Amino acid sequence: MRAVNADLQETTHEELILGLLVEGGPDFVSGEALSGKLGLSRTAVWKVVNALRRHGYRIEAVSSRGYRLLEAPDRLTALEVLPLLETHDLGRTLHTFEEVDSTNVVAFRLAVEGAEHGELVLAERQTQGRGRRGRSWSSPGHLNLHASFVLRPDLPPQRAPELTLLAAVALAESLRATGVPADIKWPNDLLVGGRKVAGILTELSADLDRVHFVVVGIGVNLNARREDFPPELAETATSVLEVSGRPVGRAAFAAALAKRLEDWLDLHAAQGFRPVRERWRALSATLGQEVLVTSERREVRGVAVDIDEDGALRIRTAGGAEERVLAGDVETVRPRVAPPSPPRAW
Amino acid sequence: MRAVNADLQETTHEELILGLLVEGGPDFVSGEALSGKLGLSRTAVWKVVNALRRHGYRIEAVSSRGYRLLEAPDRLTALEVLPLLETHDLGRTLHTFEEVDSTNVVAFRLAVEGAEHGELVLAERQTQGRGRRGRSWSSPGHLNLHASFVLRPDLPPQRAPELTLLAAVALAESLRATGVPADIKWPNDLLVGGRKVAGILTELSADLDRVHFVVVGIGVNLNARREDFPPELAETATSVLEVSGRPVGRAAFAAALAKRLEDWLDLHAAQGFRPVRERWRALSATLGQEVLVTSERREVRGVAVDIDEDGALRIRTAGGAEERVLAGDVETVRPRVAPPSPPRAW
Repeated sequence: MRAVNADLQETTHEELILGLLVEGGPDFVSGEALSGKLGLSRTAVWKVVNALRRHGYRIEAVSSRGYRLLEAPDRLTALEVLPLLETHDLGRTLHTFEEVDSTNVVAFRLAVEGAEHGELVLAERQTQGRGRRGRSWSSPGHLNLHASFVLRPDLPPQRAPELTLLAAVALAESLRATGVPADIKWPNDLLVGGRKVAGILTELSADLDRVHFVVVGIGVNLNARREDFPPELAETATSVLEVSGRPVGRAAFAAALAKRLEDWLDLHAAQGFRPVRERWRALSATLGQEVLVTSERREVRGVAVDIDEDGALRIRTAGGAEERVLAGDVETVRPRVAPPSPPRAW
Repeated sequence: MRAVNADLQETTHEELILGLLVEGGPDFVSGEALSGKLGLSRTAVWKVVNALRRHGYRIEAVSSRGYRLLEAPDRLTALEVLPLLETHDLGRTLHTFEEVDSTNVVAFRLAVEGAEHGELVLAERQTQGRGRRGRSWSSPGHLNLHASFVLRPDLPPQRAPELTLLAAVALAESLRATGVPADIKWPNDLLVGGRKVAGILTELSADLDRVHFVVVGIGVNLNARREDFPPELAETATSVLEVSGRPVGRAAFAAALAKRLEDWLDLHAAQGFRPVRERWRALSATLGQEVLVTSERREVRGVAVDIDEDGALRIRTAGGAEERVLAGDVETVRPRVAPPSPPRAW
């Protein structure tokens, strides 16, 4: 495990100049403006630009006009993410790693040591990515997003499940903004055409009265191709690239996700779970379906009719009774629309 | 923060010999038996006995009869606690400190790093002892018990509150065994005559489906005298010594508490919350009282009639309706029996 950005001083100048170039968009930013804003000599600016080029940034330099950014590398370090952030808290403190056991484990440890609301852990690769119930979450490196946010909401512990549904809403919206018609399978999977494109793992630390912190871990298949997945996932997983045909800038996706997550958290803090619940219903792949829910000690089969005020799934069984499930695995027994057959390459 | 027992090898021989002396009770244990069981020379046994004496153990040595333990120092290290343990898991791995910020903080960190079910943190002194809602728990050093158990129960997170009530039952029984008629104020205080003698702080780490671990922190006023408490607690706190007039061996109390806690955990794992709930009712100072409960966003006043299957307190309000409270502060408005007036020393 190591931080990608070792030299903080250098990184800061690179971030600042990159931020100004991103702000400039297709226009040139003059060397004079850059050196003036940073209090650096023109030569120093030129050196920082060259450092950025070594990191994979294509920067055009035209004498008398200045510099402009042509292309950014698809990396996930502070350099790529920070200039794109439009949040007040989320992601403002970034912990980026080339490889970790699991971003949730790292974020949980950071939170135990006092990490603040909004701190974000990103990793190019997870050696022990996890889903719910200790299941592994396998994902090829450098193509997808593995992100864990430390959140410190003012909530009693029994309301923590609301944050999983909230994160699912923010994630579904972020995916839809890339042109991928994702919807939510209760409680924490994002599906396209019945295949998993993203998942959420929420972990919390609490006493009886208050949540101390929540770690919201988000894994998204962005630019992985069919052949990048392990064989056992080839039929059940998909990615934004597979669905839309277009690769996604991962830093841009991470920044957009942070913004949507923060907007929903702000709304949740101000108005409670009601607006989250309404939006969740509209994005749900589960409601209206006949499902089999396997939970702790029982199986419940019936039609998923709603989610409750506390995030529990309401199921109307054949006898007409309604049952509540707080956690469990949902399997659609008789889908309203058959999922598309997986393409076969042989 | 430091471990009291630095020299593991030496500690092990001391623990073994001490264990055999404790087992021998009022009888002498021959030097030959000790050296045979440990595979040590008689001289080596004599050296270990002298090391124990330097730690404050009074050990009588009579040639031709052997050694016997007359008195143990009132310390809380592995040396004192382990020979007294009758548990299978709880306290078998001990982390003992002279001073920590809070035993719960230490235990929580250990659990994040993988501490197993039953590991126990003991400290002579806490610099930042805590109660619920971040309140401080003030306690003089070397007189009381500050203990935090790491537990790994197989439970969904919404059942975690059961463990607080379970710990309160085990703690009330341990106190009663010392002759102190303690009862339980919902959810986590132990009272004698309306004064607090002990408290519990339960913290958990979980995802939506499972508890990863629970830290049960227990603070007990054992041998503190009235003048040892800070002035602001003098009227509301008491101790086993103040109530019973007899000091308590802290290691013995810790070992007995671990045993009762483990027995209740075993019963809970086998039979669920029902037997815990029944015992809790019998030990309760809250049921039958008219109470005012201040929780998150509301106050509920009425008669505390029962605890629910999930540990929630049921209150019958003046209008006859019943309300459930999952967390909050309980204040007795009209006690059935007036608490005894505090003794006044002036």
